[in-house]
Amino acid sequence: MPQTQHSLIKKWTELQNKTGHCLCIGLDPDISKLPSGYPQSVDGLTHFLCDIIDISHEHCIAYKPNISFFEAYGIPGLKSLETVIQHIKKSVPVILDAKRGDIGNTSAMQARFIFDYLNADATTLHPYMGFDSLEPFFKYTEKYHFVLGLTSNPGAKDFETQVLDSGLPLYRHIITQLETWNRKFHNIGAVVGATQEELSIIRKSHPSLLFLIPGVGTQGGSYKEAYLNGKNDHNLALINASRSILYAAKEKSSLKKDCLHAIQTLIGDAS
Amino acid sequence: MPQTQHSLIKKWTELQNKTGHCLCIGLDPDISKLPSGYPQSVDGLTHFLCDIIDISHEHCIAYKPNISFFEAYGIPGLKSLETVIQHIKKSVPVILDAKRGDIGNTSAMQARFIFDYLNADATTLHPYMGFDSLEPFFKYTEKYHFVLGLTSNPGAKDFETQVLDSGLPLYRHIITQLETWNRKFHNIGAVVGATQEELSIIRKSHPSLLFLIPGVGTQGGSYKEAYLNGKNDHNLALINASRSILYAAKEKSSLKKDCLHAIQTLIGDAS
Repeated sequence: MPQTQHSLIKKWTELQNKTGHCLCIGLDPDISKLPSGYPQSVDGLTHFLCDIIDISHEHCIAYKPNISFFEAYGIPGLKSLETVIQHIKKSVPVILDAKRGDIGNTSAMQARFIFDYLNADATTLHPYMGFDSLEPFFKYTEKYHFVLGLTSNPGAKDFETQVLDSGLPLYRHIITQLETWNRKFHNIGAVVGATQEELSIIRKSHPSLLFLIPGVGTQGGSYKEAYLNGKNDHNLALINASRSILYAAKEKSSLKKDCLHAIQTLIGDAS
Repeated sequence: MPQTQHSLIKKWTELQNKTGHCLCIGLDPDISKLPSGYPQSVDGLTHFLCDIIDISHEHCIAYKPNISFFEAYGIPGLKSLETVIQHIKKSVPVILDAKRGDIGNTSAMQARFIFDYLNADATTLHPYMGFDSLEPFFKYTEKYHFVLGLTSNPGAKDFETQVLDSGLPLYRHIITQLETWNRKFHNIGAVVGATQEELSIIRKSHPSLLFLIPGVGTQGGSYKEAYLNGKNDHNLALINASRSILYAAKEKSSLKKDCLHAIQTLIGDAS
């Protein structure tokens, strides 16, 4: 089965054709940043996120809720996440940003939570513990799995970019391995940070692997640059922006206008 | 402040003096493995774990509940985890095995969930994203943070043991960094797998860092060997066994006898 036949690749391509873009909207909710007009509570947060989804779902190809921002509010926060995922699922796929990965029997439990219980379509994973820590995820064939390659934070230099005795940086070795594993599983992508100049170099060496590219907007990257450097040989990428869209509005009354304006500002130059 | 003054180091040393051992009991609950006599439900699981804790708390210096095994049962599973942590806290410290780590603002949310909401004393972390992904944890000065060094699973060879151009394997570079950071924070340890022959070599190069050592019991490592090779220059280590103790009993009626026998078998040769 070629990679393009994966049901999520089909869906993302279809949504890219419809919206004209490859925007993924990150949902990193923070009660203290809610626009005025929403109650400063987990309920307020849930309503806010459902409003954001209603406003933006025709302009993106995926949402990426970050489970940690929900967990921070404990069990009520996780109930909010369940509601938000159900709300998203009516329109576009859900990439649950969870950055999991552990020994095999533990990873199987993590996958059960993310896919069977929370019903996400895709997730993000830490590569450190190697293949048997990732395989229980890959075995969910209908799901997609984005493994960290090169991230957009300053600490990427501590370990990710360390040069191996082969002359390749660690993250390049990891991405090469992901490509190998993807020939078998057809459902593996890489997280590659948009603020890194290496994006286009990595893409040249790995033309087909799908990249989830965070770091656009508040983190400093440009959508256009990320898309041009990061799209694969099927012109697909998942370019994520979170805070710049989510917290564009100061007040509930201007949410729609401000949110759509933020999206337009972000992607407008790439249309 | 020297590392030995950390309140958790004091507590672990005190419990080591009391029990004569450095045993950490991992709680990886699985409803399908419950001894007969417990309902095959999340409630049954909670009762089983509280019974295990009542039976074993005078024989260990910490418990290490693995959050993924609770998450697998969704929100009811996380409620069980809350109950179990409260039950443990009456006796010994809780290391919540969560293997988190993300960009700084996300790690701060993860730490909030683990320490402020769930009230754990320590956790486990993925090193891949580097210092700024770990610092929000380290800043919880009263807590302890075990970062993955060398793990006991086969996939450790994929990335952890890759040799850098300095000639050192990646995990050694990471452990060296942890040691450097620990001089400032005094609350950092490393996870080092007991089934790896490298344990004693690593210990010689890093005499003071505290190691959390999984892989004893079902995963194949010996408690005695792990302690002798893994203890630091204050004779402290956290040697973890999970399934060999947790699932020693087939029936509820023999839980106490079988659980204590399993502990004795495991640590007996090191007394």
